[in-house]
Amino acid sequence: MITIKEIAKLANVSAATVSYVLNNTGNISQETRKRVMEIVESHNYKANVVAKSLRTSSSNTLGVVVEDITVWNSSEIIKGISEFVEKNNKHLILTDLGLLSKIGSNFQEVVKYKEKINNEIKLLLSAQVDGIIYIGMHDREIDNVIDKIKKPIMYTYCYTNDNGGNYISYDNIDISYKIAETFIMNNHTKIAVICGSYDAKPSYKRFCGFKKALDDYSIPLDPSYIKTANWDYDQGYKCAIELLEGKNPPTAIFAMNDLMAAGVLKAARELNISIPRELSVIGFDNRELSMFTWPALTTVKIPLFEMGYNAAQAIYQLINHEKIENSKYILSCELIERDTTTRHEL
Amino acid sequence: MITIKEIAKLANVSAATVSYVLNNTGNISQETRKRVMEIVESHNYKANVVAKSLRTSSSNTLGVVVEDITVWNSSEIIKGISEFVEKNNKHLILTDLGLLSKIGSNFQEVVKYKEKINNEIKLLLSAQVDGIIYIGMHDREIDNVIDKIKKPIMYTYCYTNDNGGNYISYDNIDISYKIAETFIMNNHTKIAVICGSYDAKPSYKRFCGFKKALDDYSIPLDPSYIKTANWDYDQGYKCAIELLEGKNPPTAIFAMNDLMAAGVLKAARELNISIPRELSVIGFDNRELSMFTWPALTTVKIPLFEMGYNAAQAIYQLINHEKIENSKYILSCELIERDTTTRHEL
Repeated sequence: MITIKEIAKLANVSAATVSYVLNNTGNISQETRKRVMEIVESHNYKANVVAKSLRTSSSNTLGVVVEDITVWNSSEIIKGISEFVEKNNKHLILTDLGLLSKIGSNFQEVVKYKEKINNEIKLLLSAQVDGIIYIGMHDREIDNVIDKIKKPIMYTYCYTNDNGGNYISYDNIDISYKIAETFIMNNHTKIAVICGSYDAKPSYKRFCGFKKALDDYSIPLDPSYIKTANWDYDQGYKCAIELLEGKNPPTAIFAMNDLMAAGVLKAARELNISIPRELSVIGFDNRELSMFTWPALTTVKIPLFEMGYNAAQAIYQLINHEKIENSKYILSCELIERDTTTRHEL
Repeated sequence: MITIKEIAKLANVSAATVSYVLNNTGNISQETRKRVMEIVESHNYKANVVAKSLRTSSSNTLGVVVEDITVWNSSEIIKGISEFVEKNNKHLILTDLGLLSKIGSNFQEVVKYKEKINNEIKLLLSAQVDGIIYIGMHDREIDNVIDKIKKPIMYTYCYTNDNGGNYISYDNIDISYKIAETFIMNNHTKIAVICGSYDAKPSYKRFCGFKKALDDYSIPLDPSYIKTANWDYDQGYKCAIELLEGKNPPTAIFAMNDLMAAGVLKAARELNISIPRELSVIGFDNRELSMFTWPALTTVKIPLFEMGYNAAQAIYQLINHEKIENSKYILSCELIERDTTTRHEL
């Protein structure tokens, strides 16, 4: 294996400069940094992590910032991080921003809390964390919020262009294509969709995937079949009543989250529409409640645990200056078929 | 207000000794400590927190250890802590022990992880936290697990005799009395109970409260009306089938958690028993799913947010050596009446 001294020789710099580049410290020009990293990467140099933690101020502790601990997706992501960290004899310390009660779903308002967020990150950095994972409460872009920091940072359940632009999130498009395709394969042609907030990225992406499948199979999408709710139960219920009491009621509804899908089930029950015989329903999220609705909801499982686990793995690759395949991961979702979907009999 | 110097004079010790006692540092005899604290308390001495944090190594950061972040009750307790901490310009750092996947509901096995737990606490202490809150994943006694530490520690969602024996948990007995009483007031006399694990403290306490009400109202409890499940959906379902297919089916069932209560709803549906007309059901926990079962479940709300908030408040009282009324808090639960309970028509 190549040593720091050999890298220094090849790059025509001092060993100290190589060390600065590897540790992301010191005042090194972009050009030198690039030259050193090319040699590091082409020789597949791997720092000796144990030795390194003795030499540096590494605490073997990973810092985690969660936008809101009470949002349903947070704990499973943290569990994934925890598992990686424990397997690798490291620790985790976490701080909760509690953003849900502050900004609700007005996600752009996160900038108002820029100072608080950066203070919490500084707090973790002062505890000598090796790097930071930032867990979003909603899948969206977060730019110009977190200041440039010297330690690696990985975003998950959100996207970013900041701080190296490293993130891990999940795919909305392919799975939404598959949802529409599942309805189509089951003989449905009257397929409606209840979208989340109109300006939400996941809403937009899910719609695009869904619509693409309908187009590919030449199933028309009547504009009256497109409803927009706000991710909540009551609005899901209202939209479903409108759809099901309309002139040409759908036989299948894709509700873009489980709460709205539960609202659809309630509407169908009130209107004496039998699920799945007369109406198929698919939700999104695989929240715990989806197992306990009646009938149990067919839905989409987001790979939350894997997002956390992979984010932790990737950030330690960054910390150890290992080459990572791709720092912009998009993981696939899975359709969980339960009792709200069946073949439509003409 | 009395000063440290004056306290020292009254206690006939040096000011440094008073400071040691107040900061829980130094090698001070029990006797001296007691004498100083009596004067501190009788004169209602309050440390100037701001000045104190400048003088001492206080970081205005509270350490939180959670047995398992994925257990349903954890995040709401953390939210309560977060809110107190934020209101008081402090911070929170948290570490997750991930015990659920390690010990499941064999809670006594927590001792196997004694070393890990104490290491995680040391990690938080090394980050200069002001004190520690330990969040249990199950309401039980945890003794001889956490080593003696010099900073204050408060347990929540569990009990302890260690480290000063400070805890905040919730009441199981009174609310279970109220559940039975609610059934009785609604004209039920055939009242069954599906208990959690036989050896679980909450199970025992809930049973005692429940039974007391039946006794007080002279309602007999047929032994065949007592079932023991293991807190899970499938076993709740099985117990309900046994009860409802028995010779003398009950008209009311108290299931000791929402998962088992959801199993009861499933059993009733299969047996074409109408809820609440023919059978009333009450669960426990007010988990999110309880709003989305059909019918929506009547259940018990545990004051999780308040437990977290009060634990944070109490630990800062300990940190600041303020007198706290009671360091062994038991908060009350609330019955949330939804659609699975009604008057029994004879």
